[in-house]
Amino acid sequence: MGMQRTPLSMTRLIERGAAVSPDTEVVTATATGTRRQTNRDTLERAHRLAHALRDAGVGIGDRVAVFMWNGSRHLEAYCAIAGMGAVLHNLNVRLPGGDLDYIVNHAQSRLIIADADLLGRLEPLAGRLPTVEKVVVAVEEGFENWSTSLPGAVDYEDFIAPWPDRFAWPSLDENAPLALCYTSGTTGRPKGVEYEHRSQYLHTMAMCMTDAMSLSATDAVFGVVPMFHVMGWGMPWAALMLGCKQVMPHRHTDPERLVRLMEDEEVTLATGVPTIWQGVRTVCAARPDAYDLSTLSRIVSGGSAVPPTLARWYWEALGVEMIQEWGMTETSPLATFSRRLRSPSGSPSGTAPDDYLTEVAKAGQALPGLELEVVDGNFGPLPHDGQQTGEVLVRGPWVCAAYYRDPQPAKFHGDWLVTGDVGRIDDRQCLVLADRSKDLVRSGGEWISSVDLENHILSLAGVAQACVVAQPHPKWDERPVALVVLEQGAALGGREVLEHCSERFAKWQFPDDVLFVETIPLTSTGKMDKKAVRAELAAAGYKLPDLRQAH
Amino acid sequence: MGMQRTPLSMTRLIERGAAVSPDTEVVTATATGTRRQTNRDTLERAHRLAHALRDAGVGIGDRVAVFMWNGSRHLEAYCAIAGMGAVLHNLNVRLPGGDLDYIVNHAQSRLIIADADLLGRLEPLAGRLPTVEKVVVAVEEGFENWSTSLPGAVDYEDFIAPWPDRFAWPSLDENAPLALCYTSGTTGRPKGVEYEHRSQYLHTMAMCMTDAMSLSATDAVFGVVPMFHVMGWGMPWAALMLGCKQVMPHRHTDPERLVRLMEDEEVTLATGVPTIWQGVRTVCAARPDAYDLSTLSRIVSGGSAVPPTLARWYWEALGVEMIQEWGMTETSPLATFSRRLRSPSGSPSGTAPDDYLTEVAKAGQALPGLELEVVDGNFGPLPHDGQQTGEVLVRGPWVCAAYYRDPQPAKFHGDWLVTGDVGRIDDRQCLVLADRSKDLVRSGGEWISSVDLENHILSLAGVAQACVVAQPHPKWDERPVALVVLEQGAALGGREVLEHCSERFAKWQFPDDVLFVETIPLTSTGKMDKKAVRAELAAAGYKLPDLRQAH
Repeated sequence: MGMQRTPLSMTRLIERGAAVSPDTEVVTATATGTRRQTNRDTLERAHRLAHALRDAGVGIGDRVAVFMWNGSRHLEAYCAIAGMGAVLHNLNVRLPGGDLDYIVNHAQSRLIIADADLLGRLEPLAGRLPTVEKVVVAVEEGFENWSTSLPGAVDYEDFIAPWPDRFAWPSLDENAPLALCYTSGTTGRPKGVEYEHRSQYLHTMAMCMTDAMSLSATDAVFGVVPMFHVMGWGMPWAALMLGCKQVMPHRHTDPERLVRLMEDEEVTLATGVPTIWQGVRTVCAARPDAYDLSTLSRIVSGGSAVPPTLARWYWEALGVEMIQEWGMTETSPLATFSRRLRSPSGSPSGTAPDDYLTEVAKAGQALPGLELEVVDGNFGPLPHDGQQTGEVLVRGPWVCAAYYRDPQPAKFHGDWLVTGDVGRIDDRQCLVLADRSKDLVRSGGEWISSVDLENHILSLAGVAQACVVAQPHPKWDERPVALVVLEQGAALGGREVLEHCSERFAKWQFPDDVLFVETIPLTSTGKMDKKAVRAELAAAGYKLPDLRQAH
Repeated sequence: MGMQRTPLSMTRLIERGAAVSPDTEVVTATATGTRRQTNRDTLERAHRLAHALRDAGVGIGDRVAVFMWNGSRHLEAYCAIAGMGAVLHNLNVRLPGGDLDYIVNHAQSRLIIADADLLGRLEPLAGRLPTVEKVVVAVEEGFENWSTSLPGAVDYEDFIAPWPDRFAWPSLDENAPLALCYTSGTTGRPKGVEYEHRSQYLHTMAMCMTDAMSLSATDAVFGVVPMFHVMGWGMPWAALMLGCKQVMPHRHTDPERLVRLMEDEEVTLATGVPTIWQGVRTVCAARPDAYDLSTLSRIVSGGSAVPPTLARWYWEALGVEMIQEWGMTETSPLATFSRRLRSPSGSPSGTAPDDYLTEVAKAGQALPGLELEVVDGNFGPLPHDGQQTGEVLVRGPWVCAAYYRDPQPAKFHGDWLVTGDVGRIDDRQCLVLADRSKDLVRSGGEWISSVDLENHILSLAGVAQACVVAQPHPKWDERPVALVVLEQGAALGGREVLEHCSERFAKWQFPDDVLFVETIPLTSTGKMDKKAVRAELAAAGYKLPDLRQAH
């Protein structure tokens, strides 16, 4: 044995930021302003919380559920639960009650830490969570008079107050479980993915690389991605490790408030799904001189495809580089990044804006250590020529090997994860996604990408949102229908949308129908909810135009 | 098991750069110009070399010695030997014959790959290397007519020509050995450190982080650190992983040529010991308008302390950030980095130049995953207050646990490596080195740092180099003596040097003597060779001034 066998335990990383940047702040938005504490405070409070959790009976490997917005106490919970060797079980606060119920009981969580303003969403589950012994309630301004019928309720501050600010973290095996995240359940019931110390350690190192997020101790990071959503894309761990300033919106996620927070706190890097950045854009574009976002240099977006028009607007109006990431709960979650690429000549002068905007429309290159393939229906690998499209497979040290107590053989092929996404890989190993396989429109033996159609329709002036779904057709199997939300004051008809489509698509790829709507339903993680759109169309008895005459 | 157990094998990383940047170039300096090949070429040639090595009898775990300058064939050797599961054994081309002999026989290398121009240094060892069966000779312009009496000599190109350009890399345990590096032997005989796939994988990920080297696929990297010197500080692996442009000086390391290569190849990041950058500075300062180094943004330096005056010159004259790293063969080798730090207020606006230059004079903060301590003579940990000085200990996943077939119990304390460096740690966990423990001057029970004196003397106008060594003294045990090399045309006496010392040091810390010399001897890795300086003084019968009267 030549080199040390130091276990890759997150315990080693989470203490580092407070040691190197003890006075740097964690800022949480409140009803009327902000609440601030230092990295040193945060770590000391996390140690107190670990003592309190141990006193409450939480041991190594026990699941602790967290039902919270992004805030300093949520960060303390990350740190304490991981450090003490328990398992952080994040609950999506927007999940419907039935799914919540299922998840808490499937995970057998022993304790829930919940924000006081969210107690109302938990209340209906009282009596249906037999494993839960205690609810620790985190109170923000305006919710001081909380009450609940849930068992063993205690105020978070009272819970941690009696305990010392140093907890002796145990030595853990690097493959010990760290966290349990459930998929959002857009197909079937939610499935659990159990992250491990080693997998999250390697994920954290990779996301800090220059060509990923370029995360630095000098960054002031703004995680708009909820920490209940695949651990906030790993940002809290990375920021704890590097000692970044962290700015957290809590429940105050209206676009105007987000912009003000970024300005006041001199945010340099923000994360969020594209719908968040659509909203921020609307606010900024309405009053271009009202905000100073000059410190902001990067926005990391993903979860669903980043529309090229959105990336172009941030680049041209704000000088902000939008970085597209792709991943899923099963990949911890970050798997690929798309940023500016170098020319083969080796010139370091960067790329022209149009080239950059072409690149960022791709899902990007796999982080070092991960491997991607695109395969045909028989799992035969397709060439990386940027042309041939198939199901995307991924493998590597932070990719799921099995769901938590829930065998799903169809989701794995050998040591590969079958992602459910369809795409192609180009000759520089950039993944270009066509669609989620369940959202592809299968028409006459050919595939039509709903994402490609949406992005193109979005580039038409006056269109605020576009959503393309398949509708059943007796001859073609499926045909696409477009739902369009217009910007305020815009006047467009279906004819203009189809004319615009003819710039890029063949006629058989056009939507059969264009429906103008007020809103498009979103999932609990902020993606367009196409399952709900299809259900609404079915409930309304919708039929494709060429099928109506027949009746 | 929730997550995949993918082994952390370098095999996964070294193929990536050629896949994502196939047409990016590896450029090697030649006698009259450059030799260029793409990343794709490099990888294909590495696969051929692996076939040829296997055909020559090299199996998994066998040591292959490499005796080469930095160049594309050396890079192919890195890739082939690591990929096939053999052990890359780098030989320092400047080592004295006796040490070379000892190292090759201690490692039991079966084969040597050598540059033709270096055969003359190997020739005296013919007949003394019983394990070596074959010598593969890499020929650059001007050395086509090589000959040797070493066994089984073959031209590198003839060796690899017959073989296909795909080799099926074996699956390796992540703890399998990867490389064998020997310390330069400034104390005792050289000691071997056997790197493993996992340790080097983690080291590679860490050095690419933004707050380390900020290495990116957009970089054109210039490793002046020899690849035979602790694997070129890991740069070749990182560049292979990211797909960077790589520029390699081969044997052409005179400062003028280095500057021309950086200019012509639009280098963005360079690595080298401080003596290299002293030489480059002299060339650039002599003709400030003759060179365009506008693409260069970062120089990573280390191996010995970076003089603050040197960092200031690069910052003020060229706008280049000098990054100090600290490490040793036993730490793979990078352990700490010192760069611009953020203010605790969270302002992202960076630091003022003077603050930056103060920071960069420190060895810096440990890379995430490593831990540092400073201990007293009984291994009691000292506070991180920036004041108390003691022996530096380090541990973590890329730190040596034991030397190769050479027990050295005094170099380890529990799971810590005893580094042989003396320093202090400040309240932001920055390591500040005082000295190598063997170079400290122990005077009257107090310690005098030779490095502090040298850096201060260097800040006196007219001083080109300064070297402080201890000399024996019957009353004080040891007293410092300064050797000074003047810049051309400068006129200074010992009195001016001592007056300059009074600006910062107490009288008892002043050198007892100032000797003006033409050159200071360097070690095989470019550091000032204080062992040789002390030996020369002893051989010349040197005595301290206050001891001369007594005779």
